[in-house]
Amino acid sequence: MRVSSQQLEAFITRALVAAGISGAESKSIAELMARADLNGADGHGVFRLPQYVRRIKGGAVNLKPDIRVEREAPGMALIDGDNGMGHLVMRFATEKAIEKAKSAGVAWVGVKWSNHAGPASLYASMPIAHDMIGLYLAVGNANHLPAWGGIDMLLSTNPIAVGVPAGAEPPIVLDMATTVAAYGKVKTAAQRGEAMPEGWMIDREGRPLTDPRRADEGFLLPIGGYKGYGLALVFGLLAGTLNGAAMGRDVVDFNHDDTTPTNTGHAIVAISLAAFGDVADFKRRVDELVRDIRASKRLPGVDAIRLPGEQSHAKHEERMRLGIPLPDPLLKSLNQLAAGLGIAGL
Amino acid sequence: MRVSSQQLEAFITRALVAAGISGAESKSIAELMARADLNGADGHGVFRLPQYVRRIKGGAVNLKPDIRVEREAPGMALIDGDNGMGHLVMRFATEKAIEKAKSAGVAWVGVKWSNHAGPASLYASMPIAHDMIGLYLAVGNANHLPAWGGIDMLLSTNPIAVGVPAGAEPPIVLDMATTVAAYGKVKTAAQRGEAMPEGWMIDREGRPLTDPRRADEGFLLPIGGYKGYGLALVFGLLAGTLNGAAMGRDVVDFNHDDTTPTNTGHAIVAISLAAFGDVADFKRRVDELVRDIRASKRLPGVDAIRLPGEQSHAKHEERMRLGIPLPDPLLKSLNQLAAGLGIAGL
Repeated sequence: MRVSSQQLEAFITRALVAAGISGAESKSIAELMARADLNGADGHGVFRLPQYVRRIKGGAVNLKPDIRVEREAPGMALIDGDNGMGHLVMRFATEKAIEKAKSAGVAWVGVKWSNHAGPASLYASMPIAHDMIGLYLAVGNANHLPAWGGIDMLLSTNPIAVGVPAGAEPPIVLDMATTVAAYGKVKTAAQRGEAMPEGWMIDREGRPLTDPRRADEGFLLPIGGYKGYGLALVFGLLAGTLNGAAMGRDVVDFNHDDTTPTNTGHAIVAISLAAFGDVADFKRRVDELVRDIRASKRLPGVDAIRLPGEQSHAKHEERMRLGIPLPDPLLKSLNQLAAGLGIAGL
Repeated sequence: MRVSSQQLEAFITRALVAAGISGAESKSIAELMARADLNGADGHGVFRLPQYVRRIKGGAVNLKPDIRVEREAPGMALIDGDNGMGHLVMRFATEKAIEKAKSAGVAWVGVKWSNHAGPASLYASMPIAHDMIGLYLAVGNANHLPAWGGIDMLLSTNPIAVGVPAGAEPPIVLDMATTVAAYGKVKTAAQRGEAMPEGWMIDREGRPLTDPRRADEGFLLPIGGYKGYGLALVFGLLAGTLNGAAMGRDVVDFNHDDTTPTNTGHAIVAISLAAFGDVADFKRRVDELVRDIRASKRLPGVDAIRLPGEQSHAKHEERMRLGIPLPDPLLKSLNQLAAGLGIAGL
């Protein structure tokens, strides 16, 4: 079954209003969640709604947050999200970064007391419409990664996303975890009864772990070994520790906890192209680079060379036209949620 | 043989003065190059001196650059390095970023028309003494990396470095290429007649390439497959394209060219801890995290868990005490260089 993004947005809004969030704020969150589904970020859109509602009902999230600028200087701001829904906090923070970058050229906005905010690409992409590059970092909401050589899970899959405007070509949008596989992929493999490839996880003895039902007995592997560990660590320091948000042992596993605020930390940087030079010239050079890469000679068996964000862009076009596919188990869980909230289902 | 950093610095200064650079600027470059050797960045310190002198003599580098701020806003600056030695340009840029971050909280400084500037960690570490985090990105000076699935080498090993102040613990300093192995490691393996492990390089058919003497027939692999390709690409867009510096097909291979300016691009960001909160509290939390990580339970066979920069810090302590080791082939090449320049050798 497929639904239009409007239908999906209306459904999410109904659910959030029924859970106690104001109409305007519910609509703002729903718009971002449906956008995630439109863009193909299936594990970070409406899929998360039952969990969000569970945590709202558990008292883990503030329904009437006073999201505010706690500190500010010309090139930065620190946002206190007051434990509001992450989408509201990050929309506020990204708009602040864009506004400040108009005069400052570049603005770095740190965030504390936020919550899970959906896919990183949502926020890294927002500055693009303002002829700005967006750079986003976050502390993930569950530690699945030890330090390199260790087995205590002190780090999350701390992601980075970068959105870069192009001219005639679609923008370049990188959105990646610092682990080989995001934890959502492990969950999906478990649901489907599939084995994981070697390289995704190891167990506490260092042996490859390929049975996703045994995921609790092991942990994710970072990209490039100690390099990915280093990236997860410094992205966490920048998005978490710097802002007074949770990092390391203070990270709350929001998959197994419906009552504790996560104090999620993020960072969003807006970089104005106009501050650095001619905007049209920049976009022309990005287009050239994209075309050089796409026209590159290929390894045997490779059908096409893709740019970061290209597949997401194609999904967006397709889903705008045909609607967003909802697999049966997801549809069922959403309609169960609707019944529990006393609202119309999908 | 070991030399003190003072001896090494004096030698590099003599060589650069003999090559035509002013005394004060030669000393400034030599101090940074010797610091790289002190920190254990053996492939990025005095090892590069013969190549630098060759390119100076070939007219590829401007001996009397007018390094200047071309554009400026409260949160950023764009530096035109006027094709000066990379160390001079990056010292100027980093000092500018630190100065601006004192009032702006965060300052992002882009650089164009620079040259190879030694290890990334040199510049990411400079803000630490000012209670700031340093974040550095650069476009490498030779393309050894294709887009994922391609064989045209359109990307370099574009590195990232992040320096984070701690309290009683040494600072955290991550410095890494976005490829599994830096190209210098391939060269070292070739010199020593050793095979490379699978995973460093592949050939144009996609087969593992383990003979470093055949390196020209293949290319480096990015960390995490398409993820490392994505990182190399966006770091290059931020350090190169944004600043009007070389990127993609415009990158000059400075290993095989002594006459063409490279228009090397870098970015350095200085982030003031005081803008975000209490500095002592930040450092205490970094110390706690470092100790949690170090005390983590370990995988079988692992003797210690290390923080990024820890081994470099230990080398610095050792080399301050015992001097910097110079392997025979390096010493020989430096004394040949000295003879050619008519200066005293080591």
